[in-house]
Amino acid sequence: MRLSTIYKSVRKDMDRVEEELKSVSRVDFPWLSELLDYSLGGGGKRMRPALTLLSGRFYNYNFDHLVLMATSVELMHAATLIHDDAIDNSSVRRGRATVNKVWGEDKAVLLGDYLFAKAGEYCADTQNLRAIKLFTQTLETISAGELNQIFNAFNPKQSRQHYLKRISDKTAALFTLATESGAILSQAPEEAVRALRDYGYNLGIAFQIVDDILDFTSTEEEMGKPIGSDLAQGTLTLPAMLLLERQGENNPVAELFRGGDKQKNIKLALETVCNSSIVDECYQVASDYCAQACRSLSLLPDNPTRRTLAELADFVIRRKR
Amino acid sequence: MRLSTIYKSVRKDMDRVEEELKSVSRVDFPWLSELLDYSLGGGGKRMRPALTLLSGRFYNYNFDHLVLMATSVELMHAATLIHDDAIDNSSVRRGRATVNKVWGEDKAVLLGDYLFAKAGEYCADTQNLRAIKLFTQTLETISAGELNQIFNAFNPKQSRQHYLKRISDKTAALFTLATESGAILSQAPEEAVRALRDYGYNLGIAFQIVDDILDFTSTEEEMGKPIGSDLAQGTLTLPAMLLLERQGENNPVAELFRGGDKQKNIKLALETVCNSSIVDECYQVASDYCAQACRSLSLLPDNPTRRTLAELADFVIRRKR
Repeated sequence: MRLSTIYKSVRKDMDRVEEELKSVSRVDFPWLSELLDYSLGGGGKRMRPALTLLSGRFYNYNFDHLVLMATSVELMHAATLIHDDAIDNSSVRRGRATVNKVWGEDKAVLLGDYLFAKAGEYCADTQNLRAIKLFTQTLETISAGELNQIFNAFNPKQSRQHYLKRISDKTAALFTLATESGAILSQAPEEAVRALRDYGYNLGIAFQIVDDILDFTSTEEEMGKPIGSDLAQGTLTLPAMLLLERQGENNPVAELFRGGDKQKNIKLALETVCNSSIVDECYQVASDYCAQACRSLSLLPDNPTRRTLAELADFVIRRKR
Repeated sequence: MRLSTIYKSVRKDMDRVEEELKSVSRVDFPWLSELLDYSLGGGGKRMRPALTLLSGRFYNYNFDHLVLMATSVELMHAATLIHDDAIDNSSVRRGRATVNKVWGEDKAVLLGDYLFAKAGEYCADTQNLRAIKLFTQTLETISAGELNQIFNAFNPKQSRQHYLKRISDKTAALFTLATESGAILSQAPEEAVRALRDYGYNLGIAFQIVDDILDFTSTEEEMGKPIGSDLAQGTLTLPAMLLLERQGENNPVAELFRGGDKQKNIKLALETVCNSSIVDECYQVASDYCAQACRSLSLLPDNPTRRTLAELADFVIRRKR
């Protein structure tokens, strides 16, 4: 099922979020306006705002608050991507030059700061103190997760538990904010808040594992960014971890992390992973998290929105970019 | 009068803020803890938290909320300094190596993000929606102001109005947040909120003008960072602007901004400014803003706190670092 079909029931709400995102670019400084336009257009999947809008549909549906929060979540996502690209010195994302590539790293850092602030303002406008507090804690978690990743770059001695903690912080935290805030803003009962939080967490973990697989199996054309970039940054993801576990000391990932030839070892690692059962195994792990996400949904009223969330979990596994 | 003497009446509150700042470093990741310890120690003037604590003493004094907000303001300040240093590639601040110098630019960016989030969390804990909204808008203003500065680097065609807008955004906005939030959290009547906001704004402008003067007249030893760094970054400050106005096309600032020899022209610009009436003139402008700040205080109850705020304005002009 295509994403646009899955989003059908929240199309009107999603359009309002797009309008809000466009309105963010309307500022007095033309150069800032251009930066904002560039970074908020460019076609993301808008999965996080969709999660907020959907999660807010089970109890007291409050269109205005949900649109504010969904916009906030997408702005936070945009800001983290801009900072990540600046830090990693990445040149391409979603098939376009990154902000740091076009305008320089200094402007990318400040633009990210501006977007974090704007995200905070949208969240503050919900006037919901619990959502606001959650927003700030999520940004802490994401930054700490990214720091964790950088501090452990090219470190082959990381456990699977360590990997899960890292992707939980850097990715699942924002998915959790997206779903939990939707629940909070619709005055969901506590057990439903918990259910939607668990759904968001498990979906986020699955999403990141699939991302990590695609960095081995996809193409630059499909992903809109170079393949093998995790290995190039020294980020140990699940497929690389399984390769390390299997092949002891003598494998391209260990060689790369020891400081061996970058291009040669990345190419070899991609080939080895793609020609092994590692891809299937990783997909199995991701599927298990998606199944867990869907089990959480059983605590919610059975309605079309619940089915949409299940479809979204299915999409996360099957997506090609 | 020394800063420690001025702070005497809020010593207990300031100590609590220091404790809060120390507690921020107590996190599970040892490497993050080290980064936080390093960046939150290191002896700033703590002027912004002092302003919040003092501004909250005119009406319903709420120790807990003021300490939270004062900590929030100092954390935001620390985060902006870390990002500024990373962007400018600065090596030294307050006589110590910068975070980007010791740990690299990537970690400095993420540490700044973490501190913005932590600042937001402290602010959220006041549970005051007006203070929270003001916090987010202030961070927007500061980021836009810094972007404005970078986009206009080495541009000699900037009006004094443009300079004021720039320092208003990048510096006075945070002073304004510090005083206004103190007023808001103590349920000050609207005209007192306005008075404290105006005081903070004018004090902030004066503070930045003095900063810009000291970058010409001070020494690296006294400032704890290199002198002439504004010119090196291509930032047109008031002293440089006055030099440009006076000496037409043929002066070291114009020459530097046209791409001339950096070291030679910065040295010459510093000498020329220091041996002219420009320094006195700039101090006069700063004093006028301080006088304006003090006039705003006349709308507040006449008490020891009001006198402390006046002493602080006096310190801002006379400070040597």
